[in-house]
Amino acid sequence: MANAPALPSAISTIMQVFDKYAGKDGNKDKLSKSEMKELIQAEMAPMLKDSKNPGQVDELFKCMDANGDDQVDFPEFMIALACLACICHGKECDMSKCKK
Amino acid sequence: MANAPALPSAISTIMQVFDKYAGKDGNKDKLSKSEMKELIQAEMAPMLKDSKNPGQVDELFKCMDANGDDQVDFPEFMIALACLACICHGKECDMSKCKK
Repeated sequence: MANAPALPSAISTIMQVFDKYAGKDGNKDKLSKSEMKELIQAEMAPMLKDSKNPGQVDELFKCMDANGDDQVDFPEFMIALACLACICHGKECDMSKCKK
Repeated sequence: MANAPALPSAISTIMQVFDKYAGKDGNKDKLSKSEMKELIQAEMAPMLKDSKNPGQVDELFKCMDANGDDQVDFPEFMIALACLACICHGKECDMSKCKK
C-alpha cells in the first residue's frame, strides 16, 4: 500500500541492526567499542563513502565515543545516526548534541 | 541482495519523512508544532498504538517540545524517535537525553 507509514518499519530496521551487533558480547542493550566498529564497517560504509564532508565524519566518531564508558546505547546510537545523516545529506548539524 | 546494508536506506526514509513535513511551512529544516502534529498523526500512529507504556508516550511529546522554540530539528527528531522506539519495544530509555 503506497500510503502505509514508512517510519515505523524504518525505525524497526535500525533497532534490529543495533540489536544484531549489541548482542554479540556483554550487555545486549549497548554497543561496545568493538561491536560498534563492526557495525560501522558492515552497515554504514556506503553512507560514509557518500559523505560530503569527511572531516565531520571523524568528528562524529569522536562524539559517538564521548560518553566515557566506551558503550553506546540505542538513543546515543540514533543521535549519531542523525548527525551522520545530516553530514551525508549536506544538512546543518549541531554536533554539540552528541558531545554533551 | 540479502546482505545489502539496510541502515542507510532506513535513515534516508526517516529523513524523507522529516523533510516532507518540515517543508510544509516556514523553515524547511525544522518541524513546527503543527507540522509535527501532522507527522505524528499520519506516520507514527501505528507505533503509538503498539506502545507498551502509554504514559511514556505523553512524556515523549512533552520532551519533543522542550527546546523552547517550538521547532524540532532533525537530530532532535531522531532522539525522539529513539525514545519512542525504546518505549514501543520495551527497552530501557533514558528520557533525560530528550530533556536537556
